[in-house]
Amino acid sequence: MDVSIVGIGMTPVGEHWDMGLRELSQQAVEAALNDAGVRLQEVQALVVGNALGCYLNNQNHIAALVADYTGLTGVEAFRVESMDASGGIALRQGTQLVASGAAEVVLVVGVENVTGVVGAARHNALATALDAEFEAAHGATPVAMAGMLMRRYMYEYGVELHQFENFSINAHLNGSKNPNAMYHNKLKVGAFAAAPAVADPVTLFDSAPDADGACAIVLARTEHAKDMIPVPVRIRSSAAATDTLAVHSRNDLLFLQAANLAAGRAYQQAGISPSDVHLLELHDAYTILTALQLEAIGFAERGKGWQWAADNKIGLANELPISTFGGLKARGNPLGATGVYQAAEVALQLRGAAGENQVPNARLGMALNIGGLGTSAVAHILERVD
Amino acid sequence: MDVSIVGIGMTPVGEHWDMGLRELSQQAVEAALNDAGVRLQEVQALVVGNALGCYLNNQNHIAALVADYTGLTGVEAFRVESMDASGGIALRQGTQLVASGAAEVVLVVGVENVTGVVGAARHNALATALDAEFEAAHGATPVAMAGMLMRRYMYEYGVELHQFENFSINAHLNGSKNPNAMYHNKLKVGAFAAAPAVADPVTLFDSAPDADGACAIVLARTEHAKDMIPVPVRIRSSAAATDTLAVHSRNDLLFLQAANLAAGRAYQQAGISPSDVHLLELHDAYTILTALQLEAIGFAERGKGWQWAADNKIGLANELPISTFGGLKARGNPLGATGVYQAAEVALQLRGAAGENQVPNARLGMALNIGGLGTSAVAHILERVD
Repeated sequence: MDVSIVGIGMTPVGEHWDMGLRELSQQAVEAALNDAGVRLQEVQALVVGNALGCYLNNQNHIAALVADYTGLTGVEAFRVESMDASGGIALRQGTQLVASGAAEVVLVVGVENVTGVVGAARHNALATALDAEFEAAHGATPVAMAGMLMRRYMYEYGVELHQFENFSINAHLNGSKNPNAMYHNKLKVGAFAAAPAVADPVTLFDSAPDADGACAIVLARTEHAKDMIPVPVRIRSSAAATDTLAVHSRNDLLFLQAANLAAGRAYQQAGISPSDVHLLELHDAYTILTALQLEAIGFAERGKGWQWAADNKIGLANELPISTFGGLKARGNPLGATGVYQAAEVALQLRGAAGENQVPNARLGMALNIGGLGTSAVAHILERVD
Repeated sequence: MDVSIVGIGMTPVGEHWDMGLRELSQQAVEAALNDAGVRLQEVQALVVGNALGCYLNNQNHIAALVADYTGLTGVEAFRVESMDASGGIALRQGTQLVASGAAEVVLVVGVENVTGVVGAARHNALATALDAEFEAAHGATPVAMAGMLMRRYMYEYGVELHQFENFSINAHLNGSKNPNAMYHNKLKVGAFAAAPAVADPVTLFDSAPDADGACAIVLARTEHAKDMIPVPVRIRSSAAATDTLAVHSRNDLLFLQAANLAAGRAYQQAGISPSDVHLLELHDAYTILTALQLEAIGFAERGKGWQWAADNKIGLANELPISTFGGLKARGNPLGATGVYQAAEVALQLRGAAGENQVPNARLGMALNIGGLGTSAVAHILERVD
């Protein structure tokens, strides 16, 4: 059964120390239902993506909390978690509920509230994405692992740090025009490589900020969608995959197998190839992840992903617009909500409702959400329905 | 699309201080795949139910961990969480993946590893099932809330503590014959009410033990199931619902609205009424929850649920066999795995493979999995396929 996005709502991404999981979700849900013209009583299921509520907010059962606080009490509600890929998984599982016939109207919510906790607790929480026994127990954190991957990539392919900079410059340029982005500053040429190191060689301007936020999407059958809103966005395909949990277990450190599998399945289901995609929201938590994703999902040969940035082909009007609302780097990375933001941003582009961030003539877009250092991947290919 | 259970595997429930999430899952997965005669390469998706890995094992991304360690790397894998209802939700979402056509063979795993952590950390972890801001922040724990519900029930309906005892006596009797149960001791008449209080009036013999364990179920389309194993068990219906997160928000403290809605939807989908059910695995974390579930899902009038125990109608050969392998009380409560154990036990009954715990002529059974104090509920009605 064909499934479409008929409503979108999001809170600005940032440090929301005055809001909890409740308030963030409520804002996004209200906006999405208004956008869809759907009443609370029409929602039959709620799927919530969240990564760290149990650890940082002392709150499990977040789907019930969101259902309760938004007035959906009684509805089927559950949470999914694949760390920062939780949002993409939530969208995929919401889609399954419609596709299986279990529900006609489903609400997907990604929500995360992490910035109120700083220091060791936050680091430990983020490290739960890694292998607790074989990585985190030895002090590894996600950014430290990203640093090692980047160092290896630079060595292996003879790439200099500054050659990644346009990924971040592009993200910040797009973020500067997005009212919901966390950062609105633009990056100057040269600033990226000169910025303080977070985990060498990853710098401050390379690493996406942890953030608070909530994004909601309303799903319905495509056959009904056209009567609900002017421009529905169809979920043309959806797929997920995993890789080894520990990075050291991979045969090839620099190949994102899960991204390759998820995107490959999504292309196959949709019957398209990468060149058919008009824009791509990928998981730019670090520029090394961006380069590796472009290589894993068919946009670049091995060792050449960085060239999309170096050749400046990733702007809104260029060959492959990426991070069109700022990406994780500038819009911010609200972990378990990120995948829902990504899909919502692609959908806004396909609706032609992206404002100053609009990609011209966008009809087919892709969202790729990653958990950990490539451990989980979820790909969605979305299409404008006319 | 019709979905059936074609494989079951479980570890004994108990204190597994020598095993982690990996080892527990691996045992259950291997047993389930062997039972189904399914090879690893045939599994297309993995859904994991787990409640507290992030908090007590410092491990999120548990679905990827299970996929990795069991040799399923590459497969779609994600975790679902609705606290102690996580296992039931995992079964329901695995069912959706088959029903939607997204996968042909799906592995559902419930796994929990909590007993290695004791004291405040465990209490805090369990309290994440409650409302963090309005319940847990004030010191409430699940067992304390159960105590308050039980006290209210006893006051409201004039019931004495000892009148609940047969729920626990029955659970322990059935558990004594189940090699996978945590407790094999039988309870003597009178011991229940005289046992030390855990949270008055809930006693030690009233409260189900937190436990470690893993249970795996293999799902396939019913049309293929008959060629795979001698007696498939069809998922005749599946439904979930939620109630308010905080107990104090409920209009009626003593009515489990989520259980009522989930079971009601499951009966409706299946076209049956409660009296058609041959056995019932319910969420007997506390006997007060058992009584309230029997009232919420149509087996007893309000205030009369305890009479099923008092009248001793819940044994294996009686009118409504419950906790047939010991239930949460004696088999043990491995939190996020519990719902998978429940469904697996119902399926074993319907296969006629329950050994000394067999319910005679069982053809239709129900599993009801609850999260928190009734906040989440998932109901599955299962049917023997001949």
